[in-house]
Amino acid sequence: MTEIVNNPTTARLVRTQGVTAPAGFRATGISAGIKASGKLDLALVFNEGPDHGAAAVFTRNQVKAAPVLWSQQVLTTGQLRAVILNSGGANACTGPGGFQDTHATAEAVAAALSQWGTETGAIEVAVCSTGLIGDRLPLAKVLAGVTDIVHEMAGGLTGGDEAARAIMTTDTVPKQVALHHQDNWTVGGMAKGAGMLAPSLATMLCVITTDAVADSAALDQALRKAAARTFDRLDVDGSCSTNDTVLLLASGASEITPSQDELDDAVLRVCDDLCAQLQSDAEGVTKRVAISVVGAATEDDAVAAARVIARDSLVKTALFGSDPNWGRVLAAVGMAPVRLDPNRISVSFNGFPVCIDGAGAPGARDVDLSGDVITVTVDLGAGDAQATVRTTDLSHGYVEENSAYSS
Amino acid sequence: MTEIVNNPTTARLVRTQGVTAPAGFRATGISAGIKASGKLDLALVFNEGPDHGAAAVFTRNQVKAAPVLWSQQVLTTGQLRAVILNSGGANACTGPGGFQDTHATAEAVAAALSQWGTETGAIEVAVCSTGLIGDRLPLAKVLAGVTDIVHEMAGGLTGGDEAARAIMTTDTVPKQVALHHQDNWTVGGMAKGAGMLAPSLATMLCVITTDAVADSAALDQALRKAAARTFDRLDVDGSCSTNDTVLLLASGASEITPSQDELDDAVLRVCDDLCAQLQSDAEGVTKRVAISVVGAATEDDAVAAARVIARDSLVKTALFGSDPNWGRVLAAVGMAPVRLDPNRISVSFNGFPVCIDGAGAPGARDVDLSGDVITVTVDLGAGDAQATVRTTDLSHGYVEENSAYSS
Repeated sequence: MTEIVNNPTTARLVRTQGVTAPAGFRATGISAGIKASGKLDLALVFNEGPDHGAAAVFTRNQVKAAPVLWSQQVLTTGQLRAVILNSGGANACTGPGGFQDTHATAEAVAAALSQWGTETGAIEVAVCSTGLIGDRLPLAKVLAGVTDIVHEMAGGLTGGDEAARAIMTTDTVPKQVALHHQDNWTVGGMAKGAGMLAPSLATMLCVITTDAVADSAALDQALRKAAARTFDRLDVDGSCSTNDTVLLLASGASEITPSQDELDDAVLRVCDDLCAQLQSDAEGVTKRVAISVVGAATEDDAVAAARVIARDSLVKTALFGSDPNWGRVLAAVGMAPVRLDPNRISVSFNGFPVCIDGAGAPGARDVDLSGDVITVTVDLGAGDAQATVRTTDLSHGYVEENSAYSS
Repeated sequence: MTEIVNNPTTARLVRTQGVTAPAGFRATGISAGIKASGKLDLALVFNEGPDHGAAAVFTRNQVKAAPVLWSQQVLTTGQLRAVILNSGGANACTGPGGFQDTHATAEAVAAALSQWGTETGAIEVAVCSTGLIGDRLPLAKVLAGVTDIVHEMAGGLTGGDEAARAIMTTDTVPKQVALHHQDNWTVGGMAKGAGMLAPSLATMLCVITTDAVADSAALDQALRKAAARTFDRLDVDGSCSTNDTVLLLASGASEITPSQDELDDAVLRVCDDLCAQLQSDAEGVTKRVAISVVGAATEDDAVAAARVIARDSLVKTALFGSDPNWGRVLAAVGMAPVRLDPNRISVSFNGFPVCIDGAGAPGARDVDLSGDVITVTVDLGAGDAQATVRTTDLSHGYVEENSAYSS
């Protein structure tokens, strides 16, 4: 959001490329028959090296899908050669059998890559799944798909775009971006879902790649800082998936070692852009909404207050209706786990003051919110800290999409 | 809910009466012109005594409406002669002027009652308001209405039904109930809104009366225990009003002094019945849903887990669609602030097991949820405590009602 300055003199962002933009990465997506529709449903991201450092952040949900439990173990090594991702099924709440399916998938990827000439162990393969919770995956199709996808990639068929498409569920467009640094190193990423680490609308999966030289500790710092400011501040409906996973892999193929600050900034900008794409494609979205809390005692207070407002159904339905119902914002923030002086709270919509020191401002009911981008700024009058949480309105489309069929 | 046994041998509940069912109470409702529609918008409940003990619970929102701030002061005395309630405006976020309006209203009620022959101070008059947040009330109309309503009541025009109608906002039906104890004492109540003390969909106002002999300490215990088990466990959309107020007044006119247990039970049953009426009339409701968490380590854990599920938009939209998507229940409970073992959680819908020990049960996808009452039971497998939270589905009607106009 506003914290990030797009400085074209040091780097540029392009959305026509994703995980294969950095040197040293291959990726593709195929249809393995997991989705009944026959659409792309299996993706592979492969790090050719020379380095294989990696970092990850996972869902904070206590109910974790089998692929999350698996990938958490894998990431304890700080090394990754490949990521296999499927849509068409979350493999969550599937018991010990579901975990065995994930393990078998990682073993199959390792075996196929080894056969192709890259000696790989299952412990170097992360697994991500997304789709309906509670059903076992069609393992035979997944395993056959693994053989096919490695074969196709080995044969030269590689494309980050196909990978980005293969992880889509209710997404209407693939999400990818690449940041090219002027010093000749690159960060690329793809994402699906419309949520965040916690909470999320649907599973959020994200794979970020870089050809920078960076060890797993540097990657871990960059990813955690970026996720905290981006995915953790995207809140569509307060729900949190069992499968959320964000991975960052470094090949070192550029032979450039950026400073930690440069790496942090690049990863932040890639995450921020993917976040904006997720927000724009959230289920049922008709308005992209930024809730900025300023004048907070601490940044944590600002995030907590912004999140409570972003999750409030009455605020979100009012915004869907383009109704400048600022009283609902006051009622929502009053429930935030933050100490407040109601008589010092001021609110503006799209920069227009609607509430000053806890009471209505002239013309507040006439603010035009008919556009598709809305900024709600809440000044707590308690300090200098601030934070922005991205959210969406609560629309008929959201209800329709989430009630008409299982997802 | 299930904790309450309706025992017709000691008491019976009737919904055709409300706050005037107990001896010693008068009430009525009029149109004071606060609502542009000309509908009833001002209600008065008057305790003729001989006793005037009272207790109250208020919203936990830090942003409190002027009438809440006023009534909190009044209730520190444990005594109430009258309650004046208006719909058509919440008088919240209205600054010092809004508080002066509330104070002036209480003074006017006290003056009119004194003129009628009942010496009354403003400090004996609670004020409740409900409607749109942020606008000042039309004070001249309110004050004229106060004179009229006291005059009409003094002239013999009294009716709990009119009072219950005058506090309606988006309610489609008035809510009232009376419990007649076999020992010849009675508890009556009226309510509006579709929410709870915290949180609530819209302001929840409730006035309960009894002709039992009970001091304010006894009333306070009975009301707090009842509210904790009823209104506090009704969660329509996780939002919390600035105006929520529940009042309990005792006249002593029956000259019967029930035991504390008898009083507790009677008040609980009245609150429970009003709660069920609020749930049934919640904005956009198409399903009445009970989320029961059993097998919890503590009752607090059970309530916390049930509340998280009850607030989850993905669970609520699935129930709107009659979709037995139990995976969303697991994903929701996994975010509860309660220690969980995901492999010990079991779920049933309407008594049919859909998830056993964290994995799907046979036939889970085929459970029929097409009826308008749904029970979701979640067994945490962690202890013996349990609790039930009432909620509703998240429907197109909810979105429509809360986006199409300010309320």
